[in-house]
Amino acid sequence: MAALVDVPAPVAVGVVQPALPADRDQILEIAAATGVFNTIELDVVVELLEGYYRGPEESGYHFLSYREDGRVWGFATWGPRPLSEHGYDLYWIATHPSAQRRGVARALMAEVDACIRARGGGWVLIETSSTPPYAAARAFYERCGYQCLAVLDGYYRDGDGLVIYVKRLG
Amino acid sequence: MAALVDVPAPVAVGVVQPALPADRDQILEIAAATGVFNTIELDVVVELLEGYYRGPEESGYHFLSYREDGRVWGFATWGPRPLSEHGYDLYWIATHPSAQRRGVARALMAEVDACIRARGGGWVLIETSSTPPYAAARAFYERCGYQCLAVLDGYYRDGDGLVIYVKRLG
Repeated sequence: MAALVDVPAPVAVGVVQPALPADRDQILEIAAATGVFNTIELDVVVELLEGYYRGPEESGYHFLSYREDGRVWGFATWGPRPLSEHGYDLYWIATHPSAQRRGVARALMAEVDACIRARGGGWVLIETSSTPPYAAARAFYERCGYQCLAVLDGYYRDGDGLVIYVKRLG
Repeated sequence: MAALVDVPAPVAVGVVQPALPADRDQILEIAAATGVFNTIELDVVVELLEGYYRGPEESGYHFLSYREDGRVWGFATWGPRPLSEHGYDLYWIATHPSAQRRGVARALMAEVDACIRARGGGWVLIETSSTPPYAAARAFYERCGYQCLAVLDGYYRDGDGLVIYVKRLG
C-alpha cells in the first residue's frame, strides 16, 4: 500500500533582485505573455516601470525581477500607499507562462514581504479581478496568507469585479 | 404624557455645485478649520484642488462646494478609481465647524452620489482614520449607507488605523 506523502512546493533556484534597466523589455514581454493584462493595463505597467527607473523613492513604484539562466522569468511591483507609514500596495506578481509551477511567484512574494518589512511596513493590500483568468492568482494570494476583504461585482466593468485582499506582516 | 417623536434630520437650504475658482481659499480654510487634516494632508488638499482647477477629467479630482449666504461652508472631493469603469473614491466631505449639524455634509453626500450615478458608477470607496477625531465622520458614513470592510490597525501610523468603507449605488 502506497504511503500518503506531501508533495513539497517547488523552490525556485533563481535570484530575486531590484529590476535592472536592461530588464525593461523582458518585464513588458512577461506582462504581455501572461494574457491577463489588457492594453490599458499594459500601458500602466510601462508607466510605473518608467517611474521606477526614474527613481523608486520619488515615484513610489518598486520592481523586482526573478532571474535564472541569464534571463528574467517573473517580476513583482509594489509601493507605499499615500499618507500611510505602514501600508503598502502589491500591484502585480507575474510569471512568464514558460516558467509556471517552479516557485517563481513564491520567490518574488517572499522578497516583496522582506522589502516591505525592512521599511517597517505592516499591511499589504492587493486589488485584483474576480474573473476566471485570475483564479490562479487569487488562489496564490490566499496560499500566501492574504485574506479577502470584499468582492465588488462589476467594479472594473460589467462581469469583472474587484477583489480586495490584505495581509498583515508579522 | 409626552409623545415620542422622531426628530427629523436637518435639511440644508444652501446649494451644492462644482467648486468655483473663487472658492479656493474658503475650501482650504474649511479643511484647516476642521482640525483633522495634518500638514501633509492639507498639502494633498491643495494638490488635488489644483488638479481640479486645471481640469477635473484630466486630473480625476472633482470638488463640490456647499454655498449658503454668499460663502462656502463645506466641500466634497471625489473621483474615479484608476482602471475601473464603475468604481469611485470619496476622498473627503468636510464642513466648517460653524456650520455643523445643519445638513451640509448630507447635502454634499447626496450630490456626490448623484454625480457618480450620472456617470454610471456603481461603487464608492472611502478610506478614513480609526482615531477618535474621526468618530463623527465614521458614524456619518454609516448613516449614509456605507459598510465597513476592514479596520487595519496602525496603518497610517502607530495608533492610527485605516477604516475602509464601501457603498453600492443602486
